[in-house]
Amino acid sequence: MRATEQQAAQNVRLADRFKRIRDTSRRLCEPLEPEDFVVQSMPDVSPTRWHLAHVTWFFETFVLRPHAEGYRPVDERYEYLFNSYYNAVGEQFPRPRRGMLTRPTVREIFAYRDAVDEAVARLLEQRGDDPALAELITLGLNHEQQHQELLLMDIKHVFSCNPLYPAYRPAEDSPATSVQADPALEFEGGLVEVGHAGEDFCFDNERPRHKSWLEAYRLASRMVTNGEYLEFVSSGAYRDPRHWLADGWATVREEGWKAPLYWVERDGSWFEFTLHGLEPLNPDAPVCHVSYFEADAFASWSGKRLPTEQEWEHASSDIELAGNFLDSGALHPLPHGADGGGRHQLFGDCWEWTRSPYTAYPGYARPDGAIGEYNGKFMCNQFVCRGGAAVTSHDHMRRSYRNFFYPSMRWQFTGIRLAEDPR
Amino acid sequence: MRATEQQAAQNVRLADRFKRIRDTSRRLCEPLEPEDFVVQSMPDVSPTRWHLAHVTWFFETFVLRPHAEGYRPVDERYEYLFNSYYNAVGEQFPRPRRGMLTRPTVREIFAYRDAVDEAVARLLEQRGDDPALAELITLGLNHEQQHQELLLMDIKHVFSCNPLYPAYRPAEDSPATSVQADPALEFEGGLVEVGHAGEDFCFDNERPRHKSWLEAYRLASRMVTNGEYLEFVSSGAYRDPRHWLADGWATVREEGWKAPLYWVERDGSWFEFTLHGLEPLNPDAPVCHVSYFEADAFASWSGKRLPTEQEWEHASSDIELAGNFLDSGALHPLPHGADGGGRHQLFGDCWEWTRSPYTAYPGYARPDGAIGEYNGKFMCNQFVCRGGAAVTSHDHMRRSYRNFFYPSMRWQFTGIRLAEDPR
Amino acid sequence: MRATEQQAAQNVRLADRFKRIRDTSRRLCEPLEPEDFVVQSMPDVSPTRWHLAHVTWFFETFVLRPHAEGYRPVDERYEYLFNSYYNAVGEQFPRPRRGMLTRPTVREIFAYRDAVDEAVARLLEQRGDDPALAELITLGLNHEQQHQELLLMDIKHVFSCNPLYPAYRPAEDSPATSVQADPALEFEGGLVEVGHAGEDFCFDNERPRHKSWLEAYRLASRMVTNGEYLEFVSSGAYRDPRHWLADGWATVREEGWKAPLYWVERDGSWFEFTLHGLEPLNPDAPVCHVSYFEADAFASWSGKRLPTEQEWEHASSDIELAGNFLDSGALHPLPHGADGGGRHQLFGDCWEWTRSPYTAYPGYARPDGAIGEYNGKFMCNQFVCRGGAAVTSHDHMRRSYRNFFYPSMRWQFTGIRLAEDPR
Amino acid sequence: MRATEQQAAQNVRLADRFKRIRDTSRRLCEPLEPEDFVVQSMPDVSPTRWHLAHVTWFFETFVLRPHAEGYRPVDERYEYLFNSYYNAVGEQFPRPRRGMLTRPTVREIFAYRDAVDEAVARLLEQRGDDPALAELITLGLNHEQQHQELLLMDIKHVFSCNPLYPAYRPAEDSPATSVQADPALEFEGGLVEVGHAGEDFCFDNERPRHKSWLEAYRLASRMVTNGEYLEFVSSGAYRDPRHWLADGWATVREEGWKAPLYWVERDGSWFEFTLHGLEPLNPDAPVCHVSYFEADAFASWSGKRLPTEQEWEHASSDIELAGNFLDSGALHPLPHGADGGGRHQLFGDCWEWTRSPYTAYPGYARPDGAIGEYNGKFMCNQFVCRGGAAVTSHDHMRRSYRNFFYPSMRWQFTGIRLAEDPR
Repeated sequence: MRATEQQAAQNVRLADRFKRIRDTSRRLCEPLEPEDFVVQSMPDVSPTRWHLAHVTWFFETFVLRPHAEGYRPVDERYEYLFNSYYNAVGEQFPRPRRGMLTRPTVREIFAYRDAVDEAVARLLEQRGDDPALAELITLGLNHEQQHQELLLMDIKHVFSCNPLYPAYRPAEDSPATSVQADPALEFEGGLVEVGHAGEDFCFDNERPRHKSWLEAYRLASRMVTNGEYLEFVSSGAYRDPRHWLADGWATVREEGWKAPLYWVERDGSWFEFTLHGLEPLNPDAPVCHVSYFEADAFASWSGKRLPTEQEWEHASSDIELAGNFLDSGALHPLPHGADGGGRHQLFGDCWEWTRSPYTAYPGYARPDGAIGEYNGKFMCNQFVCRGGAAVTSHDHMRRSYRNFFYPSMRWQFTGIRLAEDPR
Repeated sequence: MRATEQQAAQNVRLADRFKRIRDTSRRLCEPLEPEDFVVQSMPDVSPTRWHLAHVTWFFETFVLRPHAEGYRPVDERYEYLFNSYYNAVGEQFPRPRRGMLTRPTVREIFAYRDAVDEAVARLLEQRGDDPALAELITLGLNHEQQHQELLLMDIKHVFSCNPLYPAYRPAEDSPATSVQADPALEFEGGLVEVGHAGEDFCFDNERPRHKSWLEAYRLASRMVTNGEYLEFVSSGAYRDPRHWLADGWATVREEGWKAPLYWVERDGSWFEFTLHGLEPLNPDAPVCHVSYFEADAFASWSGKRLPTEQEWEHASSDIELAGNFLDSGALHPLPHGADGGGRHQLFGDCWEWTRSPYTAYPGYARPDGAIGEYNGKFMCNQFVCRGGAAVTSHDHMRRSYRNFFYPSMRWQFTGIRLAEDPR
Repeated sequence: MRATEQQAAQNVRLADRFKRIRDTSRRLCEPLEPEDFVVQSMPDVSPTRWHLAHVTWFFETFVLRPHAEGYRPVDERYEYLFNSYYNAVGEQFPRPRRGMLTRPTVREIFAYRDAVDEAVARLLEQRGDDPALAELITLGLNHEQQHQELLLMDIKHVFSCNPLYPAYRPAEDSPATSVQADPALEFEGGLVEVGHAGEDFCFDNERPRHKSWLEAYRLASRMVTNGEYLEFVSSGAYRDPRHWLADGWATVREEGWKAPLYWVERDGSWFEFTLHGLEPLNPDAPVCHVSYFEADAFASWSGKRLPTEQEWEHASSDIELAGNFLDSGALHPLPHGADGGGRHQLFGDCWEWTRSPYTAYPGYARPDGAIGEYNGKFMCNQFVCRGGAAVTSHDHMRRSYRNFFYPSMRWQFTGIRLAEDPR
Repeated sequence: MRATEQQAAQNVRLADRFKRIRDTSRRLCEPLEPEDFVVQSMPDVSPTRWHLAHVTWFFETFVLRPHAEGYRPVDERYEYLFNSYYNAVGEQFPRPRRGMLTRPTVREIFAYRDAVDEAVARLLEQRGDDPALAELITLGLNHEQQHQELLLMDIKHVFSCNPLYPAYRPAEDSPATSVQADPALEFEGGLVEVGHAGEDFCFDNERPRHKSWLEAYRLASRMVTNGEYLEFVSSGAYRDPRHWLADGWATVREEGWKAPLYWVERDGSWFEFTLHGLEPLNPDAPVCHVSYFEADAFASWSGKRLPTEQEWEHASSDIELAGNFLDSGALHPLPHGADGGGRHQLFGDCWEWTRSPYTAYPGYARPDGAIGEYNGKFMCNQFVCRGGAAVTSHDHMRRSYRNFFYPSMRWQFTGIRLAEDPR
């Protein structure tokens, strides 16, 4: 195949990928009523209509405006309304007030999406061979996939505020499974390399690849289950400051935490609010929607610790990147099956809290301009999570992928894997 | 006409009135999209969907459950969801979180209304001659009319939070008018009577009719206009503590007030957000959406004062109860015309702040049970407003009607009429 | 006696009064350690050192600066530091931060007092026959007496925050007394006059004397006792919204109220924190340190109501102005003795909550200038209290005296007297 | 020298050290008035009287109660009053309310100190050869030295709230110095070791010594000066979000930051509040009282970065531990002199912000019991500072010493040293 043919084939692949990922957003909205698109149930949550418009704004602002000759924005006022946090682009509508807006309506926002999709498709036909443009569109698609996960996290939180506990989608039968105590995995450590290795797309925070010294460590072969976490709850841990970080204990008391975010006790039995509505707690499934504070306290109570992100990346470097992702349709973490050759659930199910604060890798330099605001400015007071979850797209994941959350957050799909130092 | 015929005619009238007032609620929702029904833009505001359901809950709870034999509630869970503040009925879903709910959907709530309407109509056919029942239904209808006004106040506030400034309904042409300085009206005072006189419906807080001593007083023949209030604003009054009550000044500073709630300055010109969208400020129309603090400060700056509610009621006791009400369709206060024989705008246009704190009349006793929570428990820290506004139904108004708001509130349609002591 | 002699005698009396009242402030500080003068235990409380300096600032600002020729202020910076709320005088050090200051020290503040006292004494010698000056000094002395009461209220609150419960002054033995159920007093009502009648000093808010129509009413012959209030507490009233104003119930929940401010339960017995330290609750003494919300709820629970301020003033118009005031040294309300001819405790012991919101009397006009800020700007959201308390100076009291507090406040010495409408 | 003689000599040294360090606390209080000991100017600050009592409580609780036979606590209630955060010891008086207390008085607290000092001295005589006891007392002394620094930080903050700007101690003349641009220091990196090496005292968080891989780096030879930081301020950096971490920018806006904490602008000139009162800003002295957010933003604006704590420790590992500490009496950072052989101010003057979040070293295990609460539970959301400051005791410092603060804090003496990656 000659170079131009190769290029043409690549263009087609990017155009297909663009169409497929944009369609996924629409598909995720199918179970929703117009009323559901509006609500912001806490400042961290964004309304569904906002997610749909914001990811479209991203393409309009960073792809169409600078690169599509003669492009006329759908509505000049959207630049202000749907900018999230890019100070370099201009002022933003205040984040905690996103739920105040009812217009443009959902119908109008889908029309906005259609107009932008058409313009991007046209641009790809004309200039798909421009690598800078392809890179920007690829970034836009990764950005949209992140917001697809946020959309699901957020609508789950919205529904959880309703005492009627609406289901986003009815549950499908899942095969019965059970969980055994697996032996911990042993790693020798030494001078290892972490960070993204290849030339293909990754976020700036995954680079540069660099050396890191690891002491020998042990890593659990699977995630902590609901059953195990219930023992922690039942032991009175949420009333005992000894297990907790000082900031964690303050949060437990201020927020009145008694269990993971979506756990509900009724007449002595535990239930869990899921995207399928309220369901009995499955003791074999991984515990989910715990904060870093809870993950750390559980580890401390267990006499163990959380892994560092370097330990996690080293342990997952030579296994297949497969697991329970958005594509499986489960929308919830599952008890582990036979995958992973003794290393279960490293990918998918739940993001795994590491004890690593989110910081710049040695040699990292924040890119200039608006795109530089993507990651670098959040490198403070957050902790790294690894491996993706049941609401993450499979083709969005990488071994070197670094997600990050404040230690008090728990509306994201985060769980726990234990580590320890060999005696 | 014999007694039974009279009764039958009365039943028909009540049934007609029920149908008409319930239909008004539906009609008021016609300009709205489903998304608009959901938002609670501040704790005092309720979502449109909540208003529609709550007034229906009122009939279900106080009329159908106790009086309609065999009545089966539409959904048992609505008792909790749509109770506003009736502690005697049970726990309530927290008021500031009403905007978190997207279900039941608007469609489901209209179905709820239909089911209750049908059951009430049937009950009225069967037992319309029961005076206690007629009284409860009449209370329910007055309650619904109050919420119709709230619905308009609230959706105006919701739309005002949107930088796109959506219009609830396009404006109609209104006849050009102009305002002259009218001479103040003089009243002699003496021992007068205030409070509701007849046997027909009124709220408990309008009773008992009782004696009150009034000194001689003067009352402005019309309301304060936007033009006059603009002078107050332009004089720097919002930066000068001397005119303000201490609590008022604290509010001005905390809230950053610079003008009435919906005034917007753009390039040196003043606009006003209305239910017709953003419009140029009409200097001849009454100033609206001012708090008690602003009304009191304006009066103080003018060297005058606000009237007491007794003065207001005495002054309006012998003129026709007519004015710019919801029925006119204007949805906004208008410059006065030739009505009122020199006493302009006492009814309709804007609620008029009085200097009277909202308290019990001598001899008032709070009724027992849930209905007793309607008025008495709010007799603290609020001020009485009189006369109704452009968003009040005409047949909801009475000379003795006492509305009440906290002195910092200004999302309701309140304006200013000045009074003074004769020299 | 000739006019000049009369004048000279009056001067001497004012000079004596000045000395006596200023000395009282110093005497009230004798039990305190330097550390005690500094703390502001909540925003409503001011540190003792601030009270001492502020009342001195009042004389310096309103008497010495404008009237004492050649007077040199002790420290120019005190004008800003010790202004309370007189916007007409200039900016003020922020009220809630008064407890941040440790300098000038207590010693320096007493030196400030001495310098001002000397200058006022000299001025009185020279120009004591100027009635305007005498009026200002009289106002300053009344102002200082108000702050003497505040000083005691505030230091009580400061000490109450300390788990060691320090005593301001040890208790003296008080004669054993007991309380009987007295018959309620009956009043016929009619057109009465209220407000200050004579020419001698009163605050502007007590004027003008004016007519008011009263319906017939009954008034309890004594105050509600701790024993009676304990029944209310024990009945579960603090957990039952039915008795409470809506704002009151919100306050009960937010603040976690379970009893009057200084009541402390230990091992099933009730104690009360007093200026003598923690003491067993005396069931016969008047309940004290209740808010308006509690007073209103107690009245509602009792099937009665609070009196209006007009009813109170009418009932106390023909009895001797005597009672348990600061001068008695008890520093706490006492069970009633044989005083008052069947009308017990109308003066002294506790301020009595009335149901009257604090408003302007008909014809009241706010004075111009800084002195006009004394009363008028607080006429909003407060309720009138009458009769003085055990921490009020006897010669500070008048029948027409109107004290006022927000309905949620309870660190002042307020109690309850019941009223009702005749059946 | 035989073992017992050695032991005896060591006992004497510990007893001397105990006496000397305890006396330092008393000496630091000499410039204060009793009023100054009481105030808590923000939740992070503790009143001087609390510091004096708390460090004494530490000896009473961890040394005397468990080890001094027959020891009778001075006042049982102090256990609750003066516990800071040791949940394992029991409940604590709420931290933000420490400034509410006036008793025990300062005099009583000094008596408490005397009683405990005597008991510890007696215990040391009897059992000074018990290494566990010596270790506890050494910990207590290090703890007291930390609180000596806090006492100075805190009283500085208290005084800074007073518009009179009191001086803690008058300034002494300091030799004129000037600052030159020094060449940056170059380090090669590689596999290095960090953490406390020897057997003598260190905090648990400095252990274990462990390997760490460093890339090559450059480190500024001196700290950033006021003059350099003033350029940053003057460039408008406090109004430009591009330089800031997202959390930092939010803090700048919420707190209204415009310059370092104690900088004051008057008529266009800059001053700095110091322990000597308000002084003209010295452009050659290190900038002090900046938060991590400001340090990071300054580095970003400079095109550089902050060092990691490993880089800092490696760079300081082979120079003399000397600098401007508490012992110099300057009480403020000074322009650098000729010390350090080209590596200026690494020790003393200001704590240096590193970009390293405060986390556990590999292999760290939190000790059991109350002493385990000393460090481990704070390993979240804080950043490591190194090197000590002008208010730190010289003999309290170590190369491996890890101080830590939240990134928004700036009342501590923290400054900036820049680093960068070689091109």
